[in-house]
This record gives sequence, structure tokens and C-alpha cells, in this order.
Amino acid sequence: MKIGLLVIGNEILDGKISDLNTKNLANFLKLHHLELSLAITVKDTEEDIHRGLAALFDACDLIITSGGLGPTKDDITKQTLASFLGRSIEYSKQAEKIATNNFQRYEKSFPGKEHGYSFLPHGFLPLNNSTGLAPGFFGEHLGKFVFCAPGVPKEFKTMLEDELIQLIYAKLEHTGFVDSVVIRTKKLPEEKLFGEVDPDLWSKLSKIGEVSSLPVLYGVDIGVKLRASTQEELNSKKAQVLTVIDASPIKPNVWYYGTETIEEVIVELANRKKITFGFAESCTGGLCSHRVTGVSGSGNSFFGSVVSYDVSVKNQILGVKKETLATHGAVSGETANEMAEGLRKNLNVDVAISITGFAGPSGGTPEKPVGTVFIGKSVKEKTEAFRFKFYGDREQLKARFSQLALMTLLEELEKFA
Amino acid sequence: MKIGLLVIGNEILDGKISDLNTKNLANFLKLHHLELSLAITVKDTEEDIHRGLAALFDACDLIITSGGLGPTKDDITKQTLASFLGRSIEYSKQAEKIATNNFQRYEKSFPGKEHGYSFLPHGFLPLNNSTGLAPGFFGEHLGKFVFCAPGVPKEFKTMLEDELIQLIYAKLEHTGFVDSVVIRTKKLPEEKLFGEVDPDLWSKLSKIGEVSSLPVLYGVDIGVKLRASTQEELNSKKAQVLTVIDASPIKPNVWYYGTETIEEVIVELANRKKITFGFAESCTGGLCSHRVTGVSGSGNSFFGSVVSYDVSVKNQILGVKKETLATHGAVSGETANEMAEGLRKNLNVDVAISITGFAGPSGGTPEKPVGTVFIGKSVKEKTEAFRFKFYGDREQLKARFSQLALMTLLEELEKFA
Repeated sequence: MKIGLLVIGNEILDGKISDLNTKNLANFLKLHHLELSLAITVKDTEEDIHRGLAALFDACDLIITSGGLGPTKDDITKQTLASFLGRSIEYSKQAEKIATNNFQRYEKSFPGKEHGYSFLPHGFLPLNNSTGLAPGFFGEHLGKFVFCAPGVPKEFKTMLEDELIQLIYAKLEHTGFVDSVVIRTKKLPEEKLFGEVDPDLWSKLSKIGEVSSLPVLYGVDIGVKLRASTQEELNSKKAQVLTVIDASPIKPNVWYYGTETIEEVIVELANRKKITFGFAESCTGGLCSHRVTGVSGSGNSFFGSVVSYDVSVKNQILGVKKETLATHGAVSGETANEMAEGLRKNLNVDVAISITGFAGPSGGTPEKPVGTVFIGKSVKEKTEAFRFKFYGDREQLKARFSQLALMTLLEELEKFA
Repeated sequence: MKIGLLVIGNEILDGKISDLNTKNLANFLKLHHLELSLAITVKDTEEDIHRGLAALFDACDLIITSGGLGPTKDDITKQTLASFLGRSIEYSKQAEKIATNNFQRYEKSFPGKEHGYSFLPHGFLPLNNSTGLAPGFFGEHLGKFVFCAPGVPKEFKTMLEDELIQLIYAKLEHTGFVDSVVIRTKKLPEEKLFGEVDPDLWSKLSKIGEVSSLPVLYGVDIGVKLRASTQEELNSKKAQVLTVIDASPIKPNVWYYGTETIEEVIVELANRKKITFGFAESCTGGLCSHRVTGVSGSGNSFFGSVVSYDVSVKNQILGVKKETLATHGAVSGETANEMAEGLRKNLNVDVAISITGFAGPSGGTPEKPVGTVFIGKSVKEKTEAFRFKFYGDREQLKARFSQLALMTLLEELEKFA
């Protein structure tokens, strides 16, 4: 079954917002051993939506649309889909009931029929939207299926989980099993990993499945997409991938198998081992803490952080000595050490990680140009720092610095019993 | 001139990464008074790339592709474009020179011809890529133009700025002027803004340009896209939009005109007025600090923050009294007040903003369910807190809490002389 997505909305092609629905749909389908084949983003004009629908009807069996179901005049998905299919728009009592319930959930009164929530293309079924106002809808046309959901990422995502999956299993054919093994490596760039360290890796893995390589922060994620006709065959192929990696010289660079983020891996490990930690962040400006606290349950092991952007905060809150700052500078191994140690003692945590560097675009010195970072770690009375150099703009550098800090934290957590 | 984008890469349709190039291209084009008409994301198979190219050649005059120019075997953009156009792949001395220079820039040795960097579809010109290894390329086919760049967002973006804009002005026709006015409002949802507060607003603005409405964190961004044949006409239309807003009852809810982020507005204002500030963050976990430090120059006014996730950090580092925590709880106006005041005094900043709430999914109480947040502000000896309630998942709540905190900070900064 080929599945395609039509993202409708000027905001995305105008650059005002990023499209999150493609990623969410792709991940949702992957969980259910299905794949997204094609995604098209169009402006919300009738001509453009027709063009997108035509391309998707040509290529796919199930067409999912996101966006254009709201109350404003640029929300024309429903009418345009109907005109594309040559159908009329009709009042649906069931759609109105769903919309009325949704308004009640937010303690709002239903604005009435003129908002369009109560109307659907002829023959389409309304679908519940448990996190927003506008109902979604679903229908069949010449043997192909159409599923329409609102564009707000949260609403789109919950409608996939609440409604789409049932429709897929009830109405659509599910052929074969698809799964992926994701091998997460660190420290080496793509060309080194496949070019020097293990030149045969790609072809070995290709014998088992479809290989892809994705350069990520401070490493490469290798994906192997597996297809099988039974669950047993799928499991066997997964085992074959692990055997190839176990025998490969890239093995020491593998830090995880799976699609969890490093912050999820950290929180799971720290909670399981009952280790407390925190960050003394300078150039990352709170990003390490933000990433870790994005994980539910992080409060059991993450105690807190000090974002010491100004030197006065490094000195007064973290206890970095004024002479250290004067002699070695705020961006130095010595300062990183005192930041980490100060944080560990002040917050009374098991592991403290510090980050101080130049994220640019201004700042830096000839000896320590923009991109230079010192990561400190203080664990059980032992404190040390190391230096690293990255390339990139401010946003990239903050991200890379934080990734290195989290990688350092993960290595320390792994050492605990 | 219609411009379309083909995003090539399994990683996006597999859900591993979000596509950033659509947004970057859209913003780049907007800066140059141009528009993106269509974006298609395909897997990196010959069939899918051909399908995407066909749809784009059908609809657009300039086709931009991102991705598939790297050294691994899934990088097939070049070959597939050539086969689509019915052209051969040829060795290009100029492409090899660009690639060799790129490798030298990163102190790497050029891997040689077999990597494919030296080859291009017949008749295409290689383009410099100043932030990566693979050269881009540009060509013409049956009166339409094709521009191919790597998929890495940084490389894609710099190639637009370094190469595409010159090609647009040199080779392509530039017809008319397009610009947008973005009116940023706070506190009211879309249906209230257009439905109750000013029901005529949409039609009034529609007389001047193409109106769009985008619900954002804690408000709505209203866009008015303007088209004109001269710069003067464009300026006049912009002035008309401002006149409509000045006369509208939504005026008190407008916090900014333009596309800058609130953190950019904050940093500009605080630096200009020489006001120092910091955050005492609990449930936002560092996000406020991360957002502000994403802005270059933030170090002149942002001193630092304390992420006090654990109550011990609230007590020991921020000085929140144990009895306050015991009597009122960590999520309370009293704690928010003491967090803000403690931060202001400890960091010696002019404005301190505190955030304490329940981001979920667990936690919360019957009186203070998940989504409840207290924002404290401490300015010149005066400290006060207010309570708010949002809906959403953990990620959304962190984002909304941080937006409210930044909005509160901006309001305080505006009060300074």
C-alpha cells in the first residue's frame, strides 16, 4: 500500500512555520510497519490543492491531507477536495455533534453551522478530533482512500493515533512487514566510517536490507530498512544486522541501537541507576537542560543547572575563582573544571557536566576561535575537562556543543554500577 | 516565475529528520520578493525522483532540488536528473576543482573521481559550495531552470545565498514585487480575534492583500501578502495595512510588526536600554534561556539563569524558603515570587522572571492540574506573580510556558525608560 501526504498551507511555503506533520506521519507509519512514499506541500488555492491531489491519486493508494479545516477563509480543503472528486458538500449531523462536543471540551460555545465544521464532501465520514475543534473525515474514491486531518501538529498526530490506524486495519490491506534497525555511531564522519574504517560495511548491510546513512550531530546514524513476509523473518534479519555490526571495526563507535534520543537514553539510564546530575552551562545557554527536561520523568535524576552566561554568575553562583577567570579566561579547561566542580557541590549531584566555549558569530581568540568548546565533568571528587573544536553557525554550534556534553554525560552514567 | 522544490531523501519520509530546507528556501525567496509555489518530498529511488521532477517541471519555471549529492550509494540525484532529462553524465574539470578546494578547506584529501563529485549532467554548470564538500550545479532544460544543492541545511542555505540569487538575477526574469506585513498578536485565539473582537478585519485586510492567519504560541500571527508593480506601490500598501490595524479593536493585542522572534525583539530592546535579566526556570527546564541565547549579542543583557528542577535547588541556590515550599508547594505564586526575587538578588540583574508549573504528563493536583503555571517577575524591589493555564503535551506546555515568560519579560522591558 502506497501512502502519500498532502500538506496544505501558505504558512509553510511562506517560511513562517516548519512542517512537522510529515515527520510525525512518517514515524507513526513506521511504528505500524508502513511507509510514507511521497509528501507534497501546496499553497491553499484551489488550483494548487487540485494539482497536489492529482499527483497523489496518481501515485498512492491512501492519501492523507493536513491543514485547511479551520474556521478562517483560507481553510478550503473540504470544498476543494469535493470539487476535485466531483462531489457536493453536505450537512452531516454526526460532524456537527463531534464539533459541538469539541467546543464543549474547551468550555466554548459552538459557533453554529456557518463555520463549516458541520459539512463534509458527500459520502465522507466525520472523524473525532480529541485535541482540537475541527472534525477530520475519511472517504473512498475509485478504490483509493482519503483521510483529512487538521494541520495543527498535535491534532494531526492524535488523529493518526486515534482514527487512522483503525481505518488502516479495518479497511485497507496490510501487506508484509517493514522495520528498521538504526545503528547510532559517534565521533566519525560519514566518509571516514564507510570509506576508511569499514569499506565493506555498506555492501554487507545491503545484503540484508535497504541501507541509509544520516550524518547527525557528532556522528552518523546508519539505518537498515528490513522487509519480510513474517515476523520471524523480520527478527532473523534484525539479528543478521547486529552480527554484521559486532564483527565490524565501527563497533566501538556505536553508542546505541534504536531511535530514542540521547536525552531519552540518559534519563532512562540515570533513573534506573539512581544517579543525579546537572549542568553548568555557558555557551549552550540552557540547551542541555532543555533537552533533558523534554523527557518525562527527567525530574527523578536531573536536579537542575546554572546557566552562567556572564562571568559574574560563574564566579558568584558556581564559585569559579576570579583569578582562574583572569588568568585562563572564561573559555578554558580550568574554568570548565571549576564550573563542573562548583555545580556538583552546590547542587549536591553525582555527576556535573560543564560547557564553556565560543558559539559565535563574534567572540573567540586566535588561540581559541569560534567553535572551540571545553567540556568539564565532575564525578565523585574527580574533575577533568577536555577541549574540542566544531564548525558551524551559532545554532549549529550550540547544538553540537550540547550533543558532546550529553555524550560525555552518557559515558559517565555508563561507568556507574 | 513559479519556483518549486524537490526534497530528496529517505530520511525525511522515514521520519528520522525534519525537512528544514523548505522553510529556509521559503524565507530566502521571501527576502528577495519571490515565492515558493510547491514542495515535493520523495524517496531516493529513480522512480520517485522522476515522479517528483515531472510534477515540478509541469508546474514550475525554476526547479530546486535538495539532497542526494553525497558520497554514499543512496546519493543518486545527479544520475537520476540526467536520465530524466535524457542527458549523459560527464566529467567536469571545474567541478573537480571545486570539490578539491572544499576538501582542502577541511584539511581532508580529495578521495578522487570515483566519489562522483567530479561528474555532472551534460550541459550543467558546477556551483561552489562554501560550507560543505559536494559541488552544486545549475542548468537549463526546455526553457526551465534546475538548481541542485546538497540536502544538509547549512550547505543548502549558503548555496542559495551564494549562488542561487545571482542566477535568479542574471538568468531569470523577475516580475513584480511581493512582500508581507506580519502582525503579531497575543492573548486571543483565532476565532475570537476574527470572530468577536474585529469581525470585519479579514475582509478589510483582504482588500489590500492576501490574508493568512497562523495560530502560534499564545497568540495569532496575521500575514498580509502584498503584490505591487513598483516599490512605491508596495510601500503604500504596507501603510494601508498599518492604518487598518491602528483603527482596529485588536490593536492592544498587537505586540510586534515583523518576522523577528520574540527573543530577538527582547535582546534588541534590552541591549538598547542596557537592562540586564535572567530566569529562574523550573518546568521550562532551560528553554527560556536557550531561546534567548540563540540570539547573537544576548550576552550583553542576559546574565544567566538557574534551572531549579529539584526543590533542593529552589531552596539552596534561589533561596526559596522551605516553609514556602511546604505550605504552598513548588508550583505556587509564593514560590514563583521567591524564585524571581532570589534570582534577581543572587545574579544582580534588573529583571528576573520565574516559571514554575506542571508540564506533565504526570504530576499536577486537582487544584493545580497539568498545564498550570505561575510566572513571577521581580523588578526593582517589586515582585509579583500570576497564574495561567494552558493545554497541550509536555513539549507544547514547555513552549507555551516559555512564550508567556518571554512575553512577560518583554512587557517589563518596555516599561523601562
